[in-house]
Parts: sequence; structure tokens; C-alpha cells
Amino acid sequence: MQFTRLLQSIQQQHNSLLCIGLDSDPAKLPPSIRSSREPVLEFNRAIIRATSEFTCAYKINLAFYEAMGVKGWDILRETLSLIPSHILTIGDAKRGDIGNTAKQYAKALLEDLGFGATTVNPYMGFDSVEPFLQNEERGAFVLALTSNPGAKDFQHLVSKGRPLYEHVTLKVKQWNRKRNCGLVVGATRPRQLQSIRNILPRVPFLIPGVGAQGGDLRSAVRYGCDATGWLALINASRSIIFASSGRYYASAAEKSAKAMRNQINRIRDSLF
Amino acid sequence: MQFTRLLQSIQQQHNSLLCIGLDSDPAKLPPSIRSSREPVLEFNRAIIRATSEFTCAYKINLAFYEAMGVKGWDILRETLSLIPSHILTIGDAKRGDIGNTAKQYAKALLEDLGFGATTVNPYMGFDSVEPFLQNEERGAFVLALTSNPGAKDFQHLVSKGRPLYEHVTLKVKQWNRKRNCGLVVGATRPRQLQSIRNILPRVPFLIPGVGAQGGDLRSAVRYGCDATGWLALINASRSIIFASSGRYYASAAEKSAKAMRNQINRIRDSLF
Repeated sequence: MQFTRLLQSIQQQHNSLLCIGLDSDPAKLPPSIRSSREPVLEFNRAIIRATSEFTCAYKINLAFYEAMGVKGWDILRETLSLIPSHILTIGDAKRGDIGNTAKQYAKALLEDLGFGATTVNPYMGFDSVEPFLQNEERGAFVLALTSNPGAKDFQHLVSKGRPLYEHVTLKVKQWNRKRNCGLVVGATRPRQLQSIRNILPRVPFLIPGVGAQGGDLRSAVRYGCDATGWLALINASRSIIFASSGRYYASAAEKSAKAMRNQINRIRDSLF
Repeated sequence: MQFTRLLQSIQQQHNSLLCIGLDSDPAKLPPSIRSSREPVLEFNRAIIRATSEFTCAYKINLAFYEAMGVKGWDILRETLSLIPSHILTIGDAKRGDIGNTAKQYAKALLEDLGFGATTVNPYMGFDSVEPFLQNEERGAFVLALTSNPGAKDFQHLVSKGRPLYEHVTLKVKQWNRKRNCGLVVGATRPRQLQSIRNILPRVPFLIPGVGAQGGDLRSAVRYGCDATGWLALINASRSIIFASSGRYYASAAEKSAKAMRNQINRIRDSLF
């Protein structure tokens, strides 16, 4: 099944647009588990068990695992094996390199680790993205408009009447032959989110920046979804996984994930 | 010592502008070593031993090692330990992520693995690059104009009268307070290389695309060097490390590295 349809079917099956970011920074783990043998893995296990009912996807930022060195790869692999198979896994690696090398990254992420989708950086153009689009069942979310302060440095530069992130959007429209392209669009700029959705009405959007980064949830759902109320992946990381640093951190994460899933659904039901 | 001065001193000490890319793709190794216990590591050891006299830097593209999974990290770490300490090591990872995450990548590359420099992707702007610039002795080569076909998709878009890669160049000028920024500029477009050198007369350039990708060596030296004939890092990967696939692959690599170092020096001596 093509990735876009696959994602929609996962979202419908779980009745959820929520994506949980497993940014399990070792320095931020609850003190109660820091002394265990593999704190990050134990934390991930507890978080996944507590939240998998409410999410349609887990996004794993590879930086936190690479920073642990060799051990990090083992923890990453084991974490992936803990995620129920009917939930999408996104390898948030933001890779971007020339064709030959991009192929190696795609192999590492999609074949060896087995992620269902990845994030990719568009700066080097088509041949750096193409290897991530070979398998129609695996998605590639291309960075368009990000939610960090530095986004303004280049992404908003206007060329031929359009900002750079719209040029990226238009290219993704061309690259989407197998219906497995997605876009990363931050929630911090609702108007731009709307204009990008207008260009690509049926492409999945991965939307960070709600919660800790201050983006507006209502706008993220309104403009992030396609016309039928699907295909937005609203990502939350710290506000869920670090909802509490106490002993009952997992049940706090469960409550936070459930509340956010429900809040998103209420907004969606009122709009679509 | 600030990175720019450090690089120049390494280059002068070795009388070399050559950077060798250890893109040791397991599928391309000489048949004679494929059956050994760790073919990639054995290959790297032989190549480093054969070529270290002629190079001022080794560039390691992380993709080839990540594609090997957990084992790849071990091989990467062991490879780094084989490189003589007076030669620069560049972790070619092209990372680019938000501040918090970029910090983790910077830690992985510069602290845990101990690279002397990295490559970074500018798409997400300053806060994605800044963590790589914290230590004045460690350099960050920011992608400006790359040598792959996809470079034309976005890097040449003109905004306010300048192509995107020149906007990147101008930002790098601002970011270079500790004199540890560099730029990646492909050899395949000499005129653009010249215009970028004019904007940043004293910043190190990492120049891929000579050799296998067809860039012109003379132009790379002429426009890639600063006014005194240093600070260009002319990268060659496949043409050196895979100079021969026979049993004497290491001495073929030695010959190829020596010939290229000498050719670069002859050109430099005729120009500066």
C-alpha cells in the first residue's frame, strides 16, 4: 500500500493524529530510573506501553541515540522492537547527502533499522531525497518550514515571488510519484501552514512545534489536515514523555497523551 | 588555536591541500580482503598507512558506517584511532537539526568520536549550526554549493539578487566569530567558487567533486585557496582509495595520493 494511504489507514484505525517524539535525552530521565541498567530503554519501554493506545506514530530523533555511541544503536533497535507493528515509526534523522551516500543512509534507516518513514533535508536537491522514496510503503518527510528560530535565516528567502519553503513544497509535488512524500511544517506559523496545505492538498504533514515550542493546536489541526480531516501528524515530545519526572512518570505520560489525542480529536470533529 | 589557523598550520606542516575521503563502501572493497574478519577496518588501516604522508585531512562519511549498524560505530571509532593525531579528521555527517538536538549530534561527533571538524547543513539556520561552533579548535564546514546534480533544485534560487548559496556564505561570515567556520563548495562550478572566495577570503573551503565528479583541479586550487595559497581542502575519495581493486590496492592508493598531492602543489606553486 502506498505510504499516504497507509498512514491514513493507521490514523483511522487508532482514531488519532498524535505522533509522540521519543526524544529520550538521558539527562532528562526521571531520577527514579537513572540507576537502572539501561535507563533510556527502560524509560522508552514504559512510555511506549503507557501511550501506544493514543498515538498513531512514534518519532525517534536519532541524535539522542547517536550521542550514546555504540550502545545507542542497540537501544534504538530494541526500542523499535517494542513499538507495536501497527503504529508508524519515523526515523527523524534529517539526512541529506549525495545520491551514493544517501542510499547508504536510506539503507541504514529503512532496511537495517526498519523505520516506516524518515525525515530528510532538501538542501542538496532531488538526488539526495530520491533514495528515501524507492519503496512506496516507506515515507520521506521533507523539511519545508521548520519551527525553530533559525528557520528565518534561509527558509523565508523569497525567490520568483515565493519563499524557499514553497519552492521545496513545489518540488515535493513533483517528487511524489509513488505517493510516499510528506512534509515537515512547523505549527508555529499557521498562515504559512495553510498556504503549504493549499499547494499539496493530499500529502502527509509532520507538524512539530505544538506544546513546548508554543504553536497553536487549533491551527495545526485546521490547516495541517487534508480536506477530510486526516494526514496531519501532530507531534509532541517533551510535553508527553517528560510530563512528570516523578516515580509515576509513565502514567503521567499516559494522561498527557490521552488528553492531547482527545483534544486534537475534539478540534477535528468540530472542523471536519 | 582557532580552527582556521590550526588547519593552515597542518597544511603547511604536511605541504598538502589534499583531503582523502574514507568512503569505504563494503561493496567496493578489493576482493582480496573481503574474507577477512573486519574488511572495512583492514582496508582503512592499509589506506591510512599508505597515504597519511601525503594528506592533511581524512574525511569520513558517516553514512557508510551507519549502514553497517552497531558494528559500524566500532569500526568508525577504531578507524579514527588509526589516523595520526597531526592530521585533521572531518566527520562528514551533514547534520542539521534544532538547537537541542544539534547539541546531541555535536556531542556525538566532536566529543564522543573526537572529530576535528564536521560538515553541517544550513537549511534550518543558525541555531542548528551553532552547537558545532562552540569549541574554537573544532571546525564546521557549512554546505554552500554542492557538486551533485540536485544542487540546482534550491541552491541556485536567486533572492535579493543573490543565489541561495551566497546567502549561506554571507550568514557564515556572521557566524564565524571564533574563526572556526568553513564552507563546502563543489569543484564542479569554478566561477561560483571564485565568487564565494571573494566573499570569504580567509575561510577554509572543503572542495569535493574533483576527480570522479569531473571538477577541474586547476580552478579548485586557484579559486579555492586564500590569497596565500592555503585553506583549500581538495577532497578525493574513490580515485584514491579505490585506485586499484587488486591485491596491491594500498600501494595503488599511495601512488594516487602522492600524485594528486604533487599535482595540487605544482598548480599552487605556479599560482601563488
